[in-house]
Amino acid sequence: MAEKRVYFFGGGKAEGNAKMKELLGGKGANLAEMTNLGVPVPPGFTIATKVCDEYYKSGGKWPKGLDKEVDANLAKLEKAMSAKLGDPSKPLLVSVRSGAAASMPGMMDTVLNLGLNDAVIEGIISKTGNARFAYDIYRRFIDMFGDVVMRCSHDYFEEVIDTAKKKAGVELDNELNADQLKEVTEQYKAVYKKHVGELFPQDGKVQLQHAINAVFGSWNSERAIKYRQLNKITGLLGTAVNVQAMVFGNMGDDCGTGVCFTRNPSTGTKEFYGEFLMNAQGEDVVAGIRTPMELVKLKKIMPKAYQQLTKLMTRLEKHYKDMQDMEFTIQNEVLYILQTRTGKRTAEAAVKIAVDMVGERLIPKKDAVNRVTPEQLDRLLHPHFDPKAKRSVIAKGLPASPGAAVGQIVFNAEAAEAWKEDGKKVILVRIETSPEDIGGMNAAEGVITARGGMTSHAAVVARGMGKCCVAGVSALNINYAAKKLIIGEKTLKEGDWISLDGTTGEVMEGQLAMVEPTLSGDFGRFMKICDQIRKLGIRTNADTPEDAKRARDFGAEGIGLTRTEHMFFEGERIWSVRQMILAADDYAVMLKKLDAAQNDSEKKEIEKEYAKTKKDFEGSLQQLLPYQRSDFEGIFMAMDGLPVTIRLLDPPLHEFLPQDKENQAEMARRLDVKPEVVKAKVEQLHEFNPMLGHRGCRLTITYPAIARMQARAIIEAALNVQKKGKKVYPEIMIPLVGKVAELKISRDDIIDEINKVFAEKKTKIKYMIGTMIEVPRAAVTADEIAEEAEFFSFGTNDLTQMTCGFSRDDAGKFLGDYIYKGIYSADPFQKLDQTGVGKLVEMGTKLGRKTRKSLKVGICGEHGGEPSSIDFCHRVGMNYVSCSPFRVPIARLAAAQAAVRNA
Amino acid sequence: MAEKRVYFFGGGKAEGNAKMKELLGGKGANLAEMTNLGVPVPPGFTIATKVCDEYYKSGGKWPKGLDKEVDANLAKLEKAMSAKLGDPSKPLLVSVRSGAAASMPGMMDTVLNLGLNDAVIEGIISKTGNARFAYDIYRRFIDMFGDVVMRCSHDYFEEVIDTAKKKAGVELDNELNADQLKEVTEQYKAVYKKHVGELFPQDGKVQLQHAINAVFGSWNSERAIKYRQLNKITGLLGTAVNVQAMVFGNMGDDCGTGVCFTRNPSTGTKEFYGEFLMNAQGEDVVAGIRTPMELVKLKKIMPKAYQQLTKLMTRLEKHYKDMQDMEFTIQNEVLYILQTRTGKRTAEAAVKIAVDMVGERLIPKKDAVNRVTPEQLDRLLHPHFDPKAKRSVIAKGLPASPGAAVGQIVFNAEAAEAWKEDGKKVILVRIETSPEDIGGMNAAEGVITARGGMTSHAAVVARGMGKCCVAGVSALNINYAAKKLIIGEKTLKEGDWISLDGTTGEVMEGQLAMVEPTLSGDFGRFMKICDQIRKLGIRTNADTPEDAKRARDFGAEGIGLTRTEHMFFEGERIWSVRQMILAADDYAVMLKKLDAAQNDSEKKEIEKEYAKTKKDFEGSLQQLLPYQRSDFEGIFMAMDGLPVTIRLLDPPLHEFLPQDKENQAEMARRLDVKPEVVKAKVEQLHEFNPMLGHRGCRLTITYPAIARMQARAIIEAALNVQKKGKKVYPEIMIPLVGKVAELKISRDDIIDEINKVFAEKKTKIKYMIGTMIEVPRAAVTADEIAEEAEFFSFGTNDLTQMTCGFSRDDAGKFLGDYIYKGIYSADPFQKLDQTGVGKLVEMGTKLGRKTRKSLKVGICGEHGGEPSSIDFCHRVGMNYVSCSPFRVPIARLAAAQAAVRNA
Repeated sequence: MAEKRVYFFGGGKAEGNAKMKELLGGKGANLAEMTNLGVPVPPGFTIATKVCDEYYKSGGKWPKGLDKEVDANLAKLEKAMSAKLGDPSKPLLVSVRSGAAASMPGMMDTVLNLGLNDAVIEGIISKTGNARFAYDIYRRFIDMFGDVVMRCSHDYFEEVIDTAKKKAGVELDNELNADQLKEVTEQYKAVYKKHVGELFPQDGKVQLQHAINAVFGSWNSERAIKYRQLNKITGLLGTAVNVQAMVFGNMGDDCGTGVCFTRNPSTGTKEFYGEFLMNAQGEDVVAGIRTPMELVKLKKIMPKAYQQLTKLMTRLEKHYKDMQDMEFTIQNEVLYILQTRTGKRTAEAAVKIAVDMVGERLIPKKDAVNRVTPEQLDRLLHPHFDPKAKRSVIAKGLPASPGAAVGQIVFNAEAAEAWKEDGKKVILVRIETSPEDIGGMNAAEGVITARGGMTSHAAVVARGMGKCCVAGVSALNINYAAKKLIIGEKTLKEGDWISLDGTTGEVMEGQLAMVEPTLSGDFGRFMKICDQIRKLGIRTNADTPEDAKRARDFGAEGIGLTRTEHMFFEGERIWSVRQMILAADDYAVMLKKLDAAQNDSEKKEIEKEYAKTKKDFEGSLQQLLPYQRSDFEGIFMAMDGLPVTIRLLDPPLHEFLPQDKENQAEMARRLDVKPEVVKAKVEQLHEFNPMLGHRGCRLTITYPAIARMQARAIIEAALNVQKKGKKVYPEIMIPLVGKVAELKISRDDIIDEINKVFAEKKTKIKYMIGTMIEVPRAAVTADEIAEEAEFFSFGTNDLTQMTCGFSRDDAGKFLGDYIYKGIYSADPFQKLDQTGVGKLVEMGTKLGRKTRKSLKVGICGEHGGEPSSIDFCHRVGMNYVSCSPFRVPIARLAAAQAAVRNA
Repeated sequence: MAEKRVYFFGGGKAEGNAKMKELLGGKGANLAEMTNLGVPVPPGFTIATKVCDEYYKSGGKWPKGLDKEVDANLAKLEKAMSAKLGDPSKPLLVSVRSGAAASMPGMMDTVLNLGLNDAVIEGIISKTGNARFAYDIYRRFIDMFGDVVMRCSHDYFEEVIDTAKKKAGVELDNELNADQLKEVTEQYKAVYKKHVGELFPQDGKVQLQHAINAVFGSWNSERAIKYRQLNKITGLLGTAVNVQAMVFGNMGDDCGTGVCFTRNPSTGTKEFYGEFLMNAQGEDVVAGIRTPMELVKLKKIMPKAYQQLTKLMTRLEKHYKDMQDMEFTIQNEVLYILQTRTGKRTAEAAVKIAVDMVGERLIPKKDAVNRVTPEQLDRLLHPHFDPKAKRSVIAKGLPASPGAAVGQIVFNAEAAEAWKEDGKKVILVRIETSPEDIGGMNAAEGVITARGGMTSHAAVVARGMGKCCVAGVSALNINYAAKKLIIGEKTLKEGDWISLDGTTGEVMEGQLAMVEPTLSGDFGRFMKICDQIRKLGIRTNADTPEDAKRARDFGAEGIGLTRTEHMFFEGERIWSVRQMILAADDYAVMLKKLDAAQNDSEKKEIEKEYAKTKKDFEGSLQQLLPYQRSDFEGIFMAMDGLPVTIRLLDPPLHEFLPQDKENQAEMARRLDVKPEVVKAKVEQLHEFNPMLGHRGCRLTITYPAIARMQARAIIEAALNVQKKGKKVYPEIMIPLVGKVAELKISRDDIIDEINKVFAEKKTKIKYMIGTMIEVPRAAVTADEIAEEAEFFSFGTNDLTQMTCGFSRDDAGKFLGDYIYKGIYSADPFQKLDQTGVGKLVEMGTKLGRKTRKSLKVGICGEHGGEPSSIDFCHRVGMNYVSCSPFRVPIARLAAAQAAVRNA
């Protein structure tokens, strides 16, 4: 027997099936599968992908026997449709479509309505009495065949119809009447003859052969080749060709067409949902000229077809185990399903459908968690713009923190807070933000910055607040003095309205309509399913009791990172901090001198000399202590029963000093020193690379008293809250450790201070001391570090900076080029660089656990809320991820998906 | 038989030997060994260390039998010395000394002249007729015994003698006559009785027992315990006690004392060298009151003793296989050797002795390389101050580049160059230096900076130039405007003389006398020995033909790092560079637009729009090309036959722009743009953490044309020099690679450009392309990187910065604390942090060679010239180390020592 090249489908039986994608292409295999399922798809046949290969190898010839096989299948198709190619009384029309094993949407050619010719048109007219319909499909076919198959540009045909419309005095194609369309058809044939050099073929088989060749040819079109390169599609033989009977919903009142969903794609409700039009084509439903009817109405109009359709809907959803989106056509009361596929749905619907299907025992929980994407969940949690609102985008930046915001422009934090108090909604626009802007950011609806990337200060803080932020809008020119901003030609000033979309990074003029998020009971049920599946713990990064509470409501199982630096800025505290900084160096010198002193009298001498220094430094810390203690009390109260990891002071001290002259003068006044003293201190603390400077535990090494104050505040707070009957699990985290010795020294100091507190209060509490792993050196020596650490928390922001050598404040200048050139597939500050930074994370985890089997390991960088990074954390065997409160549900979902993926 | 506790030595035979250190202590074992060698050491006996343990365990009692054993050994000693303890006619005097298995210099007690009493003194006087001598040693003995053994403070005795001197009207002890000393002796005995509560013991055996107990007791004195803790000396049983006959060089004219060396310790010449005094004690030689005679004179005075001594010198040097420093005493014509030890020597002598001893076949080459320390070699290569010159140190900084320099203060590079042209010697004093200061640094004798560490710009460049530099003199306040500097109370102005010691970091006022280095033939011979032993190749870091030549003269086998950035500053070039920078961003945009263009007409449109940009950018590079080419030609000529690694442009572009207003204005004038344009560009290029910014291969990714220009210049230069009959081995090094993809893209560009050059010139040359491994990510993914790299060069400066998270420009602020607290034992920028950074180096090397077995691996950071780091590089199996020219000999030595150490 000759080699089989063509596979028939139709009449409830197909020669192929879903598994034969390689041979029949995706579309062909799917059509075969549906046919086998008893779905009434219009019959047809598929020419296998290998034939495309043979076609090319033979220089554009059909392999021997193909013509006969095509003829035989065509005959079978004619029989199935009780029609015949070119038969005016019972004409068979077919579509010819490409379809490779991998999806290449829109890349290859399609020809519809093949089989039309002059005689068939006459037949159709006499049968339907609808000459307008007949000439309309004929002229469309000539255009498409000419353009797609014979390379006679569509522009030539367009010229003709434009002239005809002018002549007829109409604007739209469908305003032309039958006679006018007939005339257009004749002119199209003339255009075809002129440019192709021969008459338009009247023989359906000739049309078919040309169309099949055209589909083969489109496999190696420039754009198809480029698409395969870009999408790394390799190893395919070619495209299959699907020849399928055309069906028409517009051949009379016993015809119709529509789309339907097995569940409501907007709400997820389990109901047959869809719409249809009688005597219409699919494109009419889409075009919106006639208003389609709700699917239920079909029950009355065509009860049999409706019943058949709903049965099929139920059946297909059960088969594919997901909500289906189907296209159907009824031709002369016969129902055809043109397509069924997994239906797109809103975020709300995705959650409801997933939960319902578990309830219906249609899918197991592990499948349900994959029915909602993290992006969908994210959308549920943030306000967004009404999709129908018209957007006038004036600039685009990085989508730094999702959501939508509308407000009036202000240019500084003070204005933001003042306007907010006046009941106004504001958007804070800054070149970049600094810790001093936090109050203003909190007051604003959203934040825009001209500089900075996805992990800039603005982005990180905004995400933490769940506040919309667009960062790095490089087109933005801000003039603080004139209180205006310029984008290209456009100038906006303080008070002008602006809208921003933190999910797309778009900045728009004016006030866009917004939709606020609402969380249904299904959301909670879905999250519970995720919790049952996931292995990773989910914690949050929270610096305030409010954040802690919010995160807890979102399902956080503890705090993985409380930053303490923001606390140093609030209200009066900053003055104590600045007083402390002014005295810090002399204080350190004093400590060294005391250490070197030979006897008590020398010590007394030194203490006398440094009396003021000691008072200024230790006094400032004494002032800060009650503030810190009450900060921690609030957080411990909110997290009753859950662990709280508190990171000791991290940033370099110069971040707490004012950089501009005016504020320096204020500081001098306030602290009663000469302005030069403040200026000199600012200069002295200046760092060339603050990222790699005097911060983190390095501060503890130089100024142990700061860490001691913080440790005391933590433990005193914990004891106070414990006294109120709450359960407190404090975990003290020492940042920026690179070598075990610095951890040991810091830890010993802290333990010493804690023991003092225990002795004073005559009571104890359990606590842990651990470290951030964020310096590469710590990761490669994690076995040593683990000797002094009860837990590790990977600070992947800084670890990425140091491992890749990227300053996240500066990398914006070249990371774009890196992603453009494909060096990184994504910003490594957003998605963990698994092959580089990840290698250190894995090494650190393994080495750490080698020393301390019970070592608790987590992540508290920005990556803790990013799904692909969470998957990595799952694989590495971490105990938990920690992310900003609004990312907690996403992390719960991503952790569940990771558990399923890596099961 | 009872357990042996006491070991005798004397009469050419000892019961112990050198191997019994554990039991007899270091001193006891050594005395035994010398005795066995036939060295006439004064006889004596050693009470074993274990007895000390027994003594403590029994609560301060002698173990049973010890008294009898001591008595027996004392009897033996008396026999050997033909003298008797307490016998006035033939008195035996002994010393009682401690001596543990580990050296604890000065930590435990010693008693001399034990055995003196009233009767013995009378005997000595009658025998020697020297009453002054007799009473002098007696009063000293009472003082020492009282103070050390009986805890009667030395101060009491001092009071007595002070009164006596006042009474006698003299100033010095030795001005008191015999009668006066006799009186003092009597008063000493009274003091003793008063404070000890009993008469001074006249019985020698009682004295001995007390003295032995005192030595035992001193084992657990506070300071001894602390010393052992600090030096981590553990596991020892206690101290041994050495009782040895005293001999006197001051008992008459047939007595004398001296020190001698088996070779000249200043020059290394093989000659008996030393000096002596007749009728004197050892302390008289040291005190300098009498002028000692040269050793050869002893030949005439005491030919027998001299002959015996020289024989012994020869013998001991042969035995110990090193130059010996010996102390001898002749008592009544009998020669005694009191001590022999390896002699200290000058750097010159060390080299000569090592070379000579190899020539004499006394030591193998592998031992010779350990006879000179890298520090000694370093001293040979740099001028240094006359050790006798008085130093008035006004400040101390880091010893950033060794050597000494004297000159007049200038505060900027222009002044340095101008003054130098006027024939003046200048010291350049800067807050910190930048690439713009290079001309001035070159003109100066030495450089001082107020900021910056051991690897600051000033330090690195100065070391490269072999120029003296003291960096980070934090006490220094510089006022550029007033052209003066203030250190504490002292103000110096431009033109004032100053001296700096780059080896100690000292800054001194005025002009210190200097000694210039001279290199002998022995130096060359010694280096050749090192070369035969070492396994590591030695290359140099050199940016100019002069440096290259110098390094070659010092034995460099190639260039491991040619930095190209300095070349961008010279003369007119900087204007082309700045022109290029102004156009760079628009040029990058143009490239992207061209890339996205759909067709040629669009491309033409774009090229038209960017015509000026293109001209400015490419034109500037065209102007730079011939300069670069000639730079490389010079270096290739100098390195004929040796490989040259050239690193492509590394620093961020903003380093080439002027930071101050005045120079920005000049740039604007010169390049015909508005000053705002320059200012805006400077601001735009500003980076928060330039260390982690847009530099290295990141520039190549954004602006491939720069790397192409450099590659072209390298290869054109190589071809030109090859044409002249030289052998050129260019190695192109791509800096700051973190991911293989960026290396591949850069490399492909470079290869493409090189192939163009080959095609144009119709000739080829072999070359290599490799990369720096300086980003932690590169080290952990070195297996991937090696796919695109033919060699690795570890840039351990930057690797240390990123692995440890230390900015070397800022770390000075806390590294001091880190070393003070013992977190790091040394500055990790000076000595490679082997356990942290080294782990990545090892990982990188192993992973790289896994992919590419033949991968050439070197190091080109500052560590390449540091001995302990070189040892590490040897162990890791690198092919070579590369260091600044002046470090090349040190690296050759250190590599040889590493080879021996790790054999």
